[in-house]
Amino acid sequence: MKETNNKIQFQVSDTLIENVKQLINSREQRQILAFLDRFHYADIAEILDELSFEEAIYSIKLLDSETTSGVLKELDDDLREKIFQNLSAKEIAEEVEELDTDDAADIIAELPEERQETVIEKIEDQEHKADIQELLAYHEDTAGGLMAKELVKVYETWTVAGCLRKIRGQAKDVKRVHSIYVVTKHDVLIGRLSLKDLIVAKSEQKISDIYLSNVDYVNVEDHAEDVAKIMQKYDLEAIPVINKNRQLLGRITIDDIVDVIKEEADKDYQLAAGITQDVEADDSIIDLTKARLPWLFLGLIGGIGAFIIMEGFQTSLSEFSILFLFTPLIAAMAGNVGVQSSAIIVQGLANDDVKGSINKRLLKEMLLAALNGIILSVFLFLFVYIWKSQNTSLAIAISVSLIVVIIIAGLIGTFIPLFLNKRGIDPAIATGPFITTSNDIFGIVIYLIIAKTILGI
Amino acid sequence: MKETNNKIQFQVSDTLIENVKQLINSREQRQILAFLDRFHYADIAEILDELSFEEAIYSIKLLDSETTSGVLKELDDDLREKIFQNLSAKEIAEEVEELDTDDAADIIAELPEERQETVIEKIEDQEHKADIQELLAYHEDTAGGLMAKELVKVYETWTVAGCLRKIRGQAKDVKRVHSIYVVTKHDVLIGRLSLKDLIVAKSEQKISDIYLSNVDYVNVEDHAEDVAKIMQKYDLEAIPVINKNRQLLGRITIDDIVDVIKEEADKDYQLAAGITQDVEADDSIIDLTKARLPWLFLGLIGGIGAFIIMEGFQTSLSEFSILFLFTPLIAAMAGNVGVQSSAIIVQGLANDDVKGSINKRLLKEMLLAALNGIILSVFLFLFVYIWKSQNTSLAIAISVSLIVVIIIAGLIGTFIPLFLNKRGIDPAIATGPFITTSNDIFGIVIYLIIAKTILGI
Repeated sequence: MKETNNKIQFQVSDTLIENVKQLINSREQRQILAFLDRFHYADIAEILDELSFEEAIYSIKLLDSETTSGVLKELDDDLREKIFQNLSAKEIAEEVEELDTDDAADIIAELPEERQETVIEKIEDQEHKADIQELLAYHEDTAGGLMAKELVKVYETWTVAGCLRKIRGQAKDVKRVHSIYVVTKHDVLIGRLSLKDLIVAKSEQKISDIYLSNVDYVNVEDHAEDVAKIMQKYDLEAIPVINKNRQLLGRITIDDIVDVIKEEADKDYQLAAGITQDVEADDSIIDLTKARLPWLFLGLIGGIGAFIIMEGFQTSLSEFSILFLFTPLIAAMAGNVGVQSSAIIVQGLANDDVKGSINKRLLKEMLLAALNGIILSVFLFLFVYIWKSQNTSLAIAISVSLIVVIIIAGLIGTFIPLFLNKRGIDPAIATGPFITTSNDIFGIVIYLIIAKTILGI
Repeated sequence: MKETNNKIQFQVSDTLIENVKQLINSREQRQILAFLDRFHYADIAEILDELSFEEAIYSIKLLDSETTSGVLKELDDDLREKIFQNLSAKEIAEEVEELDTDDAADIIAELPEERQETVIEKIEDQEHKADIQELLAYHEDTAGGLMAKELVKVYETWTVAGCLRKIRGQAKDVKRVHSIYVVTKHDVLIGRLSLKDLIVAKSEQKISDIYLSNVDYVNVEDHAEDVAKIMQKYDLEAIPVINKNRQLLGRITIDDIVDVIKEEADKDYQLAAGITQDVEADDSIIDLTKARLPWLFLGLIGGIGAFIIMEGFQTSLSEFSILFLFTPLIAAMAGNVGVQSSAIIVQGLANDDVKGSINKRLLKEMLLAALNGIILSVFLFLFVYIWKSQNTSLAIAISVSLIVVIIIAGLIGTFIPLFLNKRGIDPAIATGPFITTSNDIFGIVIYLIIAKTILGI
C-alpha cells in the first residue's frame, strides 16, 4: 500500500516548477509521468498553470485520458482555451467522454460556437452525448446549468434486493451516491432513500414501503443563487432537479454550489472595491485596466463636478476660504458612511436578512447616522474651536454640517441598494465608487450650503 | 404518502406570522404543533425569529425534543441565548443529547462559562458527553473546532460482510455516510471506502484488499480556512481529522465548510466597507455604531490631518487657491485606486492566487497605475485647460500630479496587504477606510508639493 499524502502541504514551489521544467526539457516522458502521478488533478493543474504554454501542452499530451480530463477541468480558463486550440475535435471529444455530464457541458460551452458542434458529433457514447446536448440548452445561471445527469434512481415498485442489484449497475457512473431518488414509472420524483436506508432494510421489502417522501428539490429554471440558498439553509449535499411535470432531470451537488457561493461573494467584493467582476491579480494589465478604469473615470467626473460646485461658491465664500480646506474631510466622511450603509444592506439582501419596509430601515439608518454624526461632530467642533482660536460660529458651521452630511450619506447608502433591488438590478453595484462619488458631491454641496447659512453669508 | 413540498417557495410572510401569533395567543397547542410540523427546522427557526420572545419560548416548549434541538441550532444567536436563559441546565442537556457532537459543542461553547459545566454534567449519554468535552477543548477556528465525532470507521482486518453488519450499527448515529474510514487496530487512519465500494464488493473479501489508500485528511490543529481551501480544491464532501499520531479523531463535512467560506467572505467584505466584522442589518443601533464608529473616527482624523496639511500650504499657495478646489478630486482618486489595488491583492491572497515576488507585483501595479493615470490625466488636462482659459501650467501641474498620485496610491494599496500578510496579519484590514484615509493624506501632500514645484512657487 502506498503512503497516504497529506494534501494540505501541497504548495507550488519554485523548486518544484524548476524540476518539472527540467524533466520536460530533457523529454524524460516516463519520469514526467511518474512525477505528476503523485499529485491530485487540481495540483497538476496548478503546476501546468506555472509552465510555459509549450511545456504545458507537452505534458498534457503525455497524460492518460482520465487524468487529462480531470486536469483540464481544474485548469485556468485561459490556459484551457489555448490548449483546446491545439487539440483536434476528436481529442477534445475523448476528454469530454471521461467527464461527468455537467463538467463536460461546461467545457464545451466555453468553445467557440462552430467548434461545439464538431466536438459533440465526435462523442461516441450516445447517451452521454444526448445528456450533454440537453445540459447545453440550459442557461448557466440556472439549476439546469448546474446539474449533472449522473444520479441513481429507483422505481417505487422495486424491492430492496432488486434495487441493490440495479444500483450496482448505475453507481458505476456516479462518483458519489448521496441520495437514491425514488420515481414513479413516469419518472415523476416522489421521494428519496439513502444507501444506508437500503443497507439497513430487509431485502424483500418494497421501495414504496421504505422511501422518504419529504424530498427537497429545485426546478430546472430556478436561479443558481436560489439553489445555493436552499442547499445552504437546509444543509443539503445534493438536490434533485425536476421539470414542471415533476419529472426527475438531474441533480446538483454541493461542490458546484460552493463555487456559486464563492463567485457571488467575490463579485460583490470586487464591485464594492470598484472592479468590474471577473479579474484576478494575475490577469494582464489590459484586462485589469478594463476592469478598473471605468470606475476611476466615474470618480474623476465626480471630482470635476465637486470642483465646479466649489468654484461656484468661491466668490461668496471668499472671506471663509478655510471652509474649502475641510472639503476632503467632508467628502471622505460622506463616502465612508455611504459605503458602510450600502454594504450592510447589500450583504443583508444577499443573505435574505433584510425584511420589513424600506421606511423603517431608512428611519433606523437615520437614527444610526445621527448618533454617529453627533459623536464625530462633537470631536470636530472641539478641534476647530481650539485650533481656530475659539471661533465658535466657524466651529458650529462645520460640525453641524458634518452631522447633516453623515445623515444624508447614510440615507443615500441605504436607499439606493434597496431601490435597485426592488427594480431587479443587482444592488452590489451601489457600493464602492458609485456611492462614494455621489456622496462626495452631495456632501460638499450640503456642507457649503449649511456652512454659508450658519455663518450668515 | 404526504405531498412533497417545494421548499424553495418558503418565505416568512406577514400573514404567516400573524397566523402563528393568533394560534399562540389562543393557546391552541395542538394546532400550533400541526402548523409548525409542516416546516423544516430552519424554517421554524425563521418563524420564531419573527415572534416576540414570550411567543417564541412558548412555542419552543411545545415542540418535541428532536425538533427543538434542530430548531435551536438554526436560531439567531441572540434569541438562542435568551431562550437558554429561560431553560434549566437539565432541559438544555436534553436538547444537546439530540444534536450531533459538533453542533452540541458549538451550542455549549456559547453558554456562560459557569453554566457550561452544569449543562455538561447533566448529559446522560456518557460517550456523547466525553465527545463533547473533547471537542470543547479545540479552538473554534481549527479543524478540531469544526469536526464531529460521528463517523463510520472499520478495521482493516474485517471482511465486507462483517463491515456491513457493523455499519448497520454505527450508521444509526451518522446522518450522512460519506466515506467509511479504514483504520488499523491502533485507530491509525490508513484509507477509505465508499458505501458503494462495499456494496459492489463480494461479502467474503477483506477490507485490507479493497480499501483506497489515497485518503485526504487534515490535522486537528489545522486552521479552519485551510481546511476550507483543501475541501474546495479537491471537491471533497467530508474529510477525516487526525492527530499527530495519525489517529482518526473525527470528520468535517462540507456543510460546515460552506459556513466557513461564507463567514470569511462576509468578514472581508465588511472590512472593505469599513465595518468591523459580525454585524447584520438587523442588529441594534448600538451594535452597529460600535462596528462603524471606529472606522469613521479614523476617517475623521484623516480629514483633520488633510486640513492641517492644506492649511500649511495656504500662505505659499495663496495666489493659486484654485488648487485647493481639486483636493477632493485628488483624494477621491487616490482612495479609489488604493481600494482597487488592495482589494485585488486581498482577494488573490484569500484564493491563493498571488504567487511570485512582491517586487514583481509592485512593478506590475506601477505599470497598471501609470496606464490608468495617464488616460485619466489627459482627460483632466483637457478639462482644466479648456475650463481655465488655456492656463497650460495649471493644467499641467494638476494632471501630472494626478498621474503621480495614482501610481503611489496603487503601490501603497498593493504593498500594505502584501506586507500585512507576510507579517501574519489579516490583509483584509488594509482595504476600505484604512487605505482610503492614508491615501487621501498621501495624495493631497504629493499633489500640493508637485503642483507647487511645477508652478514654480
